[in-house]
Amino acid sequence: MIAIQDYYADHFARCYGCGRLNAHGYQLKTRWNGEHTLTTFVPKEYHTSIPGFVYGGLLASLIDCHGTGSAALALARDRGLVLVPYNAPRCVTASLQINYLSPTPIESEIRILGKIIEVKGRKVIVDAELYADNKLCVTGRIIAVEVPENFGK
Amino acid sequence: MIAIQDYYADHFARCYGCGRLNAHGYQLKTRWNGEHTLTTFVPKEYHTSIPGFVYGGLLASLIDCHGTGSAALALARDRGLVLVPYNAPRCVTASLQINYLSPTPIESEIRILGKIIEVKGRKVIVDAELYADNKLCVTGRIIAVEVPENFGK
Repeated sequence: MIAIQDYYADHFARCYGCGRLNAHGYQLKTRWNGEHTLTTFVPKEYHTSIPGFVYGGLLASLIDCHGTGSAALALARDRGLVLVPYNAPRCVTASLQINYLSPTPIESEIRILGKIIEVKGRKVIVDAELYADNKLCVTGRIIAVEVPENFGK
Repeated sequence: MIAIQDYYADHFARCYGCGRLNAHGYQLKTRWNGEHTLTTFVPKEYHTSIPGFVYGGLLASLIDCHGTGSAALALARDRGLVLVPYNAPRCVTASLQINYLSPTPIESEIRILGKIIEVKGRKVIVDAELYADNKLCVTGRIIAVEVPENFGK
């Protein structure tokens, strides 16, 4: 199963959240899972907010990177692009909305589901649902925009 | 100048973003600066998104923690509370809205200004402006809610 982050060009693969070439970072992987997209993450013990729970900034980061990854998957699909190393589109975030419904327990694997709401030219809207212990803890919406392929090069 | 995070009870001071007792984290400090609140942060070289720029998840994290810190300062002020170790109110985030206006350069100190928009009971709305190189790069709004003092204890 292809993770979009494995198909970003090298200069697009340095992100702390999802870059395969960032040894310090989370190295998030975003894949299709049926009609939706999926990523998983296991927090470290020190990713805490209030004891027992994950800090909200990490959850926002994961939704952000899963959102841009989902947007890139959607663009590739809509264009009929066959992904080969390293031809994936790359999106950045224009806006991010996060709703913390209930505290996210820190000892569980986190699963984030992405739903492609709209693809319009270079702009993609993605909704996210973040689960821990099979409980919906956080929801989000990101508006992602594709960048030119030589951006940041 | 008092930083609100130095007045949180120990069990509220473990946050990766702003806990003085989290050795792995950012240890953000939120202070009054006239009518507004201020925090500063210097990103590491590996906090990158696209080369040269800070990854958006970190910026969301900083605005989140500066927002809850600003909310706690506002609650203390409105109640006429004299801050002593460790009697500060503690807020968590109900929702977070982030708008990325332009890429945030990674080699600059980040400054985040907080503006208290509304205090209503245990709920506080805070707007944030994030600057790097004196340029407004990101704006945000958080809705923060005070938690009971034994929460997570």
